[in-house]
Amino acid sequence: MRLARLGPVGAERPAVVVGPDAYVDVGDLVPDIDATTLPDGFGWLAERVESRVTAGLVEALGARRVGPPVARPHQILCAGLNYRDHAAEIGADVPALPLVFSKSPNTLVGPYDDVRAPRGFSRLDWEVELGLVVGRRTSYLDSPDQARDHVAGFVVCNDVSERAFQDEHGGQILKGKSAETFNPCGPWLVTPDEVGDVSALGMWLDVSGARRQSGSTGTMVFDPYELLWHLSQYMVLEPGDLVNTGTPPGVANGMAEPAWLQPGDVMELGIDGLGSQRQRVVAPR
Amino acid sequence: MRLARLGPVGAERPAVVVGPDAYVDVGDLVPDIDATTLPDGFGWLAERVESRVTAGLVEALGARRVGPPVARPHQILCAGLNYRDHAAEIGADVPALPLVFSKSPNTLVGPYDDVRAPRGFSRLDWEVELGLVVGRRTSYLDSPDQARDHVAGFVVCNDVSERAFQDEHGGQILKGKSAETFNPCGPWLVTPDEVGDVSALGMWLDVSGARRQSGSTGTMVFDPYELLWHLSQYMVLEPGDLVNTGTPPGVANGMAEPAWLQPGDVMELGIDGLGSQRQRVVAPR
Repeated sequence: MRLARLGPVGAERPAVVVGPDAYVDVGDLVPDIDATTLPDGFGWLAERVESRVTAGLVEALGARRVGPPVARPHQILCAGLNYRDHAAEIGADVPALPLVFSKSPNTLVGPYDDVRAPRGFSRLDWEVELGLVVGRRTSYLDSPDQARDHVAGFVVCNDVSERAFQDEHGGQILKGKSAETFNPCGPWLVTPDEVGDVSALGMWLDVSGARRQSGSTGTMVFDPYELLWHLSQYMVLEPGDLVNTGTPPGVANGMAEPAWLQPGDVMELGIDGLGSQRQRVVAPR
Repeated sequence: MRLARLGPVGAERPAVVVGPDAYVDVGDLVPDIDATTLPDGFGWLAERVESRVTAGLVEALGARRVGPPVARPHQILCAGLNYRDHAAEIGADVPALPLVFSKSPNTLVGPYDDVRAPRGFSRLDWEVELGLVVGRRTSYLDSPDQARDHVAGFVVCNDVSERAFQDEHGGQILKGKSAETFNPCGPWLVTPDEVGDVSALGMWLDVSGARRQSGSTGTMVFDPYELLWHLSQYMVLEPGDLVNTGTPPGVANGMAEPAWLQPGDVMELGIDGLGSQRQRVVAPR
């Protein structure tokens, strides 16, 4: 199942994606895709959606905005240097244990919303990432395999980064990851049954028409289930929490002459089976 | 004004503290102390509280639990190495810019709740801290002085830390700061007018009767308003967000022979004018 949230910021309504530009509204059945509704899953919706399709209750997107496919999470966690080929491009060692950092949850925006450069930006960068959405309360998992029962689904994320804030402004990574609009997410939350082999998904990112990232989840150091198992030893994850699982090669930070993002640039990115995104970079407030 | 939230976990009711063990329930006037109610402040309550005091509607705590005085925040941010004398005790340089890390928001518990050691703990440590509660949406403040208008009040926090997770398990600080129950908070949210000079507050922490920390907010590197101004350049803070402003000397991590916490230990801590806390350390789940 592919789930979406459609409508203005803060007033999105859940919908199920049933074809190219074909949505069934389920806002009357599901108040939101969030910590309250995720633990039950959405399998029970299938029959209702099918009836609505039969009844012709299918809509095109039209002028509606696509929001992030989950409500604002309790926390956004990210794995750094989690692709062997990305670690190599920036001359870093592959971590022995997952390198974990956080982003402010209010960075979450829709897949086609603008990305706003922060004041004082100088090394603004992109990162296409496979995002894992936690399905239920998760603590002290016994194994990566057990983590499978705790995943609601997967999403495309753009883990936007201001590298100067990240590397040169004192201390921890989160300072370069938490500006407003820095986490475009979606268009869909795709349930694991529909994703197939999560460790063999092609992924790509273009900036203003130039291919910058091209990779596969197959070069991850720690796969999504290993990451969730690992995280669960250190903290309690809540339903709806988002885990960005790292980025493949091709970020500006890895280029000999980095083509840092500028207002006016357009990022387009996607992952096999999870849909694609498009964001315009806009000037600081 | 001193605000508290009294009652079982997840069902706390707001109250105003009017004397030693004297509370006026305001749960019928204020649904919660959270992102919704903080922006308006609680000054408008003063008259209602006074009437209730006159009418004798004052209660003792009795068997009620004291919860954290704010609801679970959107984010918990912390300043590391933010006391000159603490940096010195662990042989670290004072940071040139605030060192910022995060904790999972679901670490927040009441001031007398148990602190649970995480599985695999080995270097469990305490940190008495002055916590700043954000009063309204905060982004790109012009100056530390402007930050004063964005502070709802101050709280005592215990920034509990597992140093092995923090230092030896790969990467960033948050891994050692985010275990369940790792952020006791309260007993009161004290409004700035009642705190007085926030840069001259004595603070202390005992472990099982032995004085471990003894300090003053006067040795902070970056004061609370500087911290909030700094953070606001990198991220948007929401009402209710909690900023732990660092710890004075005397943590186990700074001792020649660290007396790491063990199940059975009792932590007692407090800050002038902000009340005191008491937590029992209990064994892992």
